[in-house]
Amino acid sequence: MSHNGAASWRVKGNDVATADHTPQNPDPTPEESDTGSIPTDTGSARHGEPDSVPRGLSRRGLLGLMGAGLAAGLGAGVPLGAGLKARSAGRGGQDSGLEYPFYGEHQAGIATPVQDQMHIAAFDVEDDLTRDDLIELLQDWTYASRRMTMGLDVSAAGSFDGGAYMPPDDTGEAVELGPQGLTVTFGFGKSLFELDGVDRFGLREHTPAEFADLPKMVNDFIEPALSGGDLMVQACSNDPQVAVHAIRNLTRIAFGRAKIRWSQLGFGRTSSTSTAQSTPRNLFGQKDGTANIKAENPEELEEHVWIPSSQGPAWAVGGTYFVGRRVAMTIEIWDSVRLEEQERVTGRDKRAGAPLSGGEEFTDPDFAVTDDRGEPRIDERSHVFRTHPDNNSGIKMLRRGYNYVDGNDELGRLNAGLFFIAFVKDPDRFATVHKNMARDDLFVEYLRTTSSSVFIVPPGIEEGTYVGQGLFES
Amino acid sequence: MSHNGAASWRVKGNDVATADHTPQNPDPTPEESDTGSIPTDTGSARHGEPDSVPRGLSRRGLLGLMGAGLAAGLGAGVPLGAGLKARSAGRGGQDSGLEYPFYGEHQAGIATPVQDQMHIAAFDVEDDLTRDDLIELLQDWTYASRRMTMGLDVSAAGSFDGGAYMPPDDTGEAVELGPQGLTVTFGFGKSLFELDGVDRFGLREHTPAEFADLPKMVNDFIEPALSGGDLMVQACSNDPQVAVHAIRNLTRIAFGRAKIRWSQLGFGRTSSTSTAQSTPRNLFGQKDGTANIKAENPEELEEHVWIPSSQGPAWAVGGTYFVGRRVAMTIEIWDSVRLEEQERVTGRDKRAGAPLSGGEEFTDPDFAVTDDRGEPRIDERSHVFRTHPDNNSGIKMLRRGYNYVDGNDELGRLNAGLFFIAFVKDPDRFATVHKNMARDDLFVEYLRTTSSSVFIVPPGIEEGTYVGQGLFES
Repeated sequence: MSHNGAASWRVKGNDVATADHTPQNPDPTPEESDTGSIPTDTGSARHGEPDSVPRGLSRRGLLGLMGAGLAAGLGAGVPLGAGLKARSAGRGGQDSGLEYPFYGEHQAGIATPVQDQMHIAAFDVEDDLTRDDLIELLQDWTYASRRMTMGLDVSAAGSFDGGAYMPPDDTGEAVELGPQGLTVTFGFGKSLFELDGVDRFGLREHTPAEFADLPKMVNDFIEPALSGGDLMVQACSNDPQVAVHAIRNLTRIAFGRAKIRWSQLGFGRTSSTSTAQSTPRNLFGQKDGTANIKAENPEELEEHVWIPSSQGPAWAVGGTYFVGRRVAMTIEIWDSVRLEEQERVTGRDKRAGAPLSGGEEFTDPDFAVTDDRGEPRIDERSHVFRTHPDNNSGIKMLRRGYNYVDGNDELGRLNAGLFFIAFVKDPDRFATVHKNMARDDLFVEYLRTTSSSVFIVPPGIEEGTYVGQGLFES
Repeated sequence: MSHNGAASWRVKGNDVATADHTPQNPDPTPEESDTGSIPTDTGSARHGEPDSVPRGLSRRGLLGLMGAGLAAGLGAGVPLGAGLKARSAGRGGQDSGLEYPFYGEHQAGIATPVQDQMHIAAFDVEDDLTRDDLIELLQDWTYASRRMTMGLDVSAAGSFDGGAYMPPDDTGEAVELGPQGLTVTFGFGKSLFELDGVDRFGLREHTPAEFADLPKMVNDFIEPALSGGDLMVQACSNDPQVAVHAIRNLTRIAFGRAKIRWSQLGFGRTSSTSTAQSTPRNLFGQKDGTANIKAENPEELEEHVWIPSSQGPAWAVGGTYFVGRRVAMTIEIWDSVRLEEQERVTGRDKRAGAPLSGGEEFTDPDFAVTDDRGEPRIDERSHVFRTHPDNNSGIKMLRRGYNYVDGNDELGRLNAGLFFIAFVKDPDRFATVHKNMARDDLFVEYLRTTSSSVFIVPPGIEEGTYVGQGLFES
């Protein structure tokens, strides 16, 4: 098997998943992707082989796909080849829909326009995982994710073409759904660099100086089992089934190497990262995210989000930090608060989202404006006051959270809230704003944070590399 | 306040929510609904007053909207009027989108083309609820639901127009989202007719003879707290936030009268109820609802779904029974099963969904077809064999289930599965098929049912009536 790309890693072991593939057009145009030849035996998308993904899953990844039930019984001598021979069928692109580039300077799913649905999971690696195993896992995840963001199955054999006597490589529930704007974003936890004083993967010396846990904050009721983890995968899509399919199949691929520590489904983006998107409302009925960083402002992304070379370390430049906090909202209590007080708490008119100092949604708040009695129109304890860049040394974050509803409690109250996500170039920047908010913000009374995680997000992936490769080669 | 419709009930107590409304056009065309005058102070939809909903919430419903925090402190003498005076603003319909009729011979959300998202909740009424209270609750729910299915807030005062000193009537998170194909479907539990031998609401004599609990079934691991309930509300929409908004606000309105017993979010319809919809795949990657009853076959709906006058009782004719079962899938085990066995279990080709006897997805299975060795191509223990109408006295069900993913367990396995929903004219028809399936179906090995509920779904709602009115007047 030969690659014509800048391949700097090779799949170990079994290459058969792509054995009959000869890459000729490594970078198909969208038109070619969407209108590729339709296989004669089916109209389904996803199971073909993209010309631009000339690699396969590792042997261990293929074993993972066979699941817990079979892998234990399979030794090195089991011939995997026959069942996994690739088909040369093209793609039926009739439902492929929106597709975001997987490769680039930065990982997708950060400045990408926020999709409607999210499935996120944190993973802990198995105790016996070696450094090489970890690299192989990241290679497999990169390979499979790249395919899924193109609307393809996780491997060339995919959902149907692995042969009758093998479990299918792909679980199949996203067949024909298309990419649906899927992005897959990876992060590394602090425990990957060091756990209980142990340098598990020889990464300790490469730990960024800024990579610190968040300090304990007011209204934190953190459940450790729902927080942290060695690895993080955020899958966002406009179709929940596509996002779920991605997390599920990456979980399968990781079988025996890493397992889910916590996961969360979210819906209804609570912010916009593009000026083309309207500001949605959160479960408090507010337009909260109005002043978010937008992809159309690359200067702001450079200033606030992407790790600069002046900060480093070199392997992380162009990456960012993910801060994720599961914030339960006491919505029944909020719902009993009078409108005036709801607006005082947020500092914004509820209907239009305009700051109480006047204007429209995107008018900058003017904290100096006073009412007839000389009182500031925007309360100093309001959310917009406490979190505004003007009151936080100019700090901005790229917020990208989702609402969640996880059933109800025994009193009939909905378990609902916001899975808050922010991307910042330094986790201390989040901590600074949050401390300022937590100290005095009236909003905090209605919130209860049960999960808190920080992951470093490596820079973007180039074709022929895997996510985080710079870390392992630095 | 006067009505020009066929109003047979009146809102008790406070009428101010609609005080300045004079109905003139009780049945606006969709065009009028969608392009009504846009209020000058905002572009938001949802907060206006539809001409065709000339009623308001009951005083108790309005108290419920104030929530637990305030209602206890409010006596009969508190003047609600000032804060709840209706505005005459029209609707900004720019995002109103898909709208299904709320009124009709049958409730919406059954034969309606399946939407992408569901939020369902069962409620238990409070111990001190009287028959009149129950009727008032159903009237309030009818009023608010009708409004929400039009893309409006739950009341005329809505999210913003209740005045500064009152909690808003509507929680606001669905403002500007439009109806998004929202349907709200109501059901009554057996306990509403009789609980522990007590005829709580004078309804016992009207209990349909067919309304029986399901028998204990194989692989039932039923949790009572997640099953049953006095009342059921199924909200389906193409936007999860719209479905969640509906359940949340109906829950608020019920405050002090009923509270949530269990609830479930679902995504990714697992069946289609219209020939215009393609058959989606469930989390096993299968096209499982191929042979579903379609809205385009009214004869099948009459034969299998709607309660006929020959069956009765009279108040229930045109209604149906809802069977809901939360079926956890052991997806990690399923994923390790070889393709041939997955297909043997389901009796269908996984790729195309065609029966193993040959043909295409919508080809009828032929259970007589044999292979080279004389064995039936479709195993007698396959799901399609066990559940096919030919093997169940011709019984068909209208299936309308949703996938769910509720986090993961401590072993890193996804808590995922199917919230199975079927509408049948007699719950025994479901039990018959299920018993046939459970006895021998290979599929059952991969399933674990944790919740099971049966509700009778009253017939459709006519303008000027409330859901279930026929029951209370029979």
